[in-house]
Amino acid sequence: MLIKEHIAEQAKMAKTAALKLATISTKIKNVALLKMAEELVKRQDEILAENELDIKAAREKGTRESMIDRLTLTPERIESMAEGLRQTEKLPDPTGGEDMNVTRPNGLKIRRIRVPFGVIGIIYESRPNVTVDAAALCLKSGNACVLRGGSDAIRTNKKLVEILSAAAISVGIPEHTIEFIDIMDRDAIVAMCRLRKLIDVIIPRGGAGLITRVVEHSTVPVIETGTGVCHIYVDKAADLEQALKISINAKTSRPSVCNAMETLLVHKDVAEKFLPEMTKTMTEKKVELRGDEKSRKICPEMLPATEEDWSTEYNDLILSVKVVDSLEEATEHINKYNTQHSDAIITKDPVAAEKFQTEVDSATVYVNASTRFTDGFEFGFGAEIGISTQKLHARGPMGLEALTTMKYLVEGDGQIR
Amino acid sequence: MLIKEHIAEQAKMAKTAALKLATISTKIKNVALLKMAEELVKRQDEILAENELDIKAAREKGTRESMIDRLTLTPERIESMAEGLRQTEKLPDPTGGEDMNVTRPNGLKIRRIRVPFGVIGIIYESRPNVTVDAAALCLKSGNACVLRGGSDAIRTNKKLVEILSAAAISVGIPEHTIEFIDIMDRDAIVAMCRLRKLIDVIIPRGGAGLITRVVEHSTVPVIETGTGVCHIYVDKAADLEQALKISINAKTSRPSVCNAMETLLVHKDVAEKFLPEMTKTMTEKKVELRGDEKSRKICPEMLPATEEDWSTEYNDLILSVKVVDSLEEATEHINKYNTQHSDAIITKDPVAAEKFQTEVDSATVYVNASTRFTDGFEFGFGAEIGISTQKLHARGPMGLEALTTMKYLVEGDGQIR
Repeated sequence: MLIKEHIAEQAKMAKTAALKLATISTKIKNVALLKMAEELVKRQDEILAENELDIKAAREKGTRESMIDRLTLTPERIESMAEGLRQTEKLPDPTGGEDMNVTRPNGLKIRRIRVPFGVIGIIYESRPNVTVDAAALCLKSGNACVLRGGSDAIRTNKKLVEILSAAAISVGIPEHTIEFIDIMDRDAIVAMCRLRKLIDVIIPRGGAGLITRVVEHSTVPVIETGTGVCHIYVDKAADLEQALKISINAKTSRPSVCNAMETLLVHKDVAEKFLPEMTKTMTEKKVELRGDEKSRKICPEMLPATEEDWSTEYNDLILSVKVVDSLEEATEHINKYNTQHSDAIITKDPVAAEKFQTEVDSATVYVNASTRFTDGFEFGFGAEIGISTQKLHARGPMGLEALTTMKYLVEGDGQIR
Repeated sequence: MLIKEHIAEQAKMAKTAALKLATISTKIKNVALLKMAEELVKRQDEILAENELDIKAAREKGTRESMIDRLTLTPERIESMAEGLRQTEKLPDPTGGEDMNVTRPNGLKIRRIRVPFGVIGIIYESRPNVTVDAAALCLKSGNACVLRGGSDAIRTNKKLVEILSAAAISVGIPEHTIEFIDIMDRDAIVAMCRLRKLIDVIIPRGGAGLITRVVEHSTVPVIETGTGVCHIYVDKAADLEQALKISINAKTSRPSVCNAMETLLVHKDVAEKFLPEMTKTMTEKKVELRGDEKSRKICPEMLPATEEDWSTEYNDLILSVKVVDSLEEATEHINKYNTQHSDAIITKDPVAAEKFQTEVDSATVYVNASTRFTDGFEFGFGAEIGISTQKLHARGPMGLEALTTMKYLVEGDGQIR
């Protein structure tokens, strides 16, 4: 009960801030972003001190080193956060633009303009840079935010928000524009997700567990992000050398991210030629292969894949492999098991490519390129708040515009209906 | 358990249909819409017979006459449904268009195209015309639909879907493109709302109770529609004659709809002049007035308004009235109690108008016009699937484009990252 009320209170303050913030000029928002960057660097010793306490606590809890690494800040990493703020300053303001302006036969003038959502709730896990990125992108798009980071980074995050807020307020941004929830009880997430009318949209950033939890409990609209069971299908008309290069890249260049490949599908006509070479190279790269029966006939060194494998996002050096009889079988498999994130076909046949792009139900469908390109920066958006895996509102990499909605302004001179 | 499985089965069939439907040409979809119109008229006796059974059952249950009227079909009403189908045929196909086409420095070609959602779930109440409208708009936008109408109209709706489906299938539309749930158990709604990956979006159309139920239970993304606590604020710089005309129109022209006014706010400087005249005319129109203390000082014949009144959508000839000290008090009241649907200011002061339009957080904000214009047809969209009161994806009147999403198609020649 107390948790609920406390968080509702914070959201209420953010909402009041949002109404003021919506009327603040682009210039002031930009000045604030630069000031925030400046203060982060200037006060880095304070940040590093808090970060050290978080790291110490995480070590004592026995947190594994890969997580400790995600959590750890250095002067270089703080500089890179500051650089993110400076880059956000340079991006165009996504609000205010008009995409409809008509006069109806009855004389009503109808305009549709881009406006901020109001209050955006962001729920994320360990990396402290998300705190800075999220605050910057929300501010640039005119939104107040309610941030809820992971418990491992609590001290670091609190200090970051303290510095960012003070910097923003000092140049005219309303107080409570950046709210941070420091209640680490898991009920805090549920409480946040039920603040209809106070929070306008919730964006969870993290693993499948977090996202499912948010979707299950939220009555606030949610943008789901970032779970990726991505596929590459090697067609019978593939350039096999290219297929190998792309597969290795999609699996091994950064296995922990959502746009990495998790399942490789191979057409039966090229399987005998492709699989042994692929298996050899993947094994050299320390990838564990889990194949279906047909793949294992060709490469018996693969472990057997189970039904569960097809829907698993490994985020690790593991790859499931399946031989398919046709393009149709490939698209059917993908539409059954993917998370509608990113899937690719490798083929020289333009008809197969088009069929695949039409029939695969995914935010981004590639022909002859690695799934690893699904990313706001790679797409040229200059920023990324996450990669949406739902179809509502935003799909694929989300830039600043995804943090806005629209509003109809209608002017009349007494019209009635 | 059985209900859940049965509905999941229907949604699965709709999903299979949707994948096929996405590749069907605009021409075939248009032929289907005309055929559907033709068959509705041709088979109207079958429809009227089923409708009579629904009406008889409703009467036996003691359903009130206004509901019976909503349920009742006549040859004219069937012709008007058919005309809706013919008009949908004439609208442009919202899918296929391209709104981004760039070549990145690394040679990747990125295009963004409009595509159907896939499967749209629509949950609605008594009026059978929603069955026809929803099926038509979903089909035109390339979506399969799973429809769940109210129990009162069950026989009529089943017959309508039987006729529409047969007509569509006869010209090449995939089977199961229009699925109808005839399980009237309330659990059916909950079961539908939890079919993630089978249903892409759910649109509830009906009263606040239905919408809350859907939002509470849904794990499928929802577009909330149609609850309207709409306000008119009569500014101190209002043309009072215009204010009266607009207020009467917004309250009395069709009190049962979501864009009707529910609360009238009046600036204190004009209250003494405006309220007596307003009270007189509203009373003549049989409107019950519920005023705050200040209003009742001027017009003691008003009933006292309670806190609950300010957030009530009466959908009836009832109006709550409040005198405010300033424009700020008006916008604060509106932002606290509105449903972000439609709100209006009546003023000759352009500064007040702009301030109101900026600060009121609503899908449509009017200056000197009736809130009754918030409607897809009035806005020139040619169709309307509902009026969104959320900020995600679609806001305000939703035309065909609101039933689509986008997809990135990326072509490369071996790019890796």
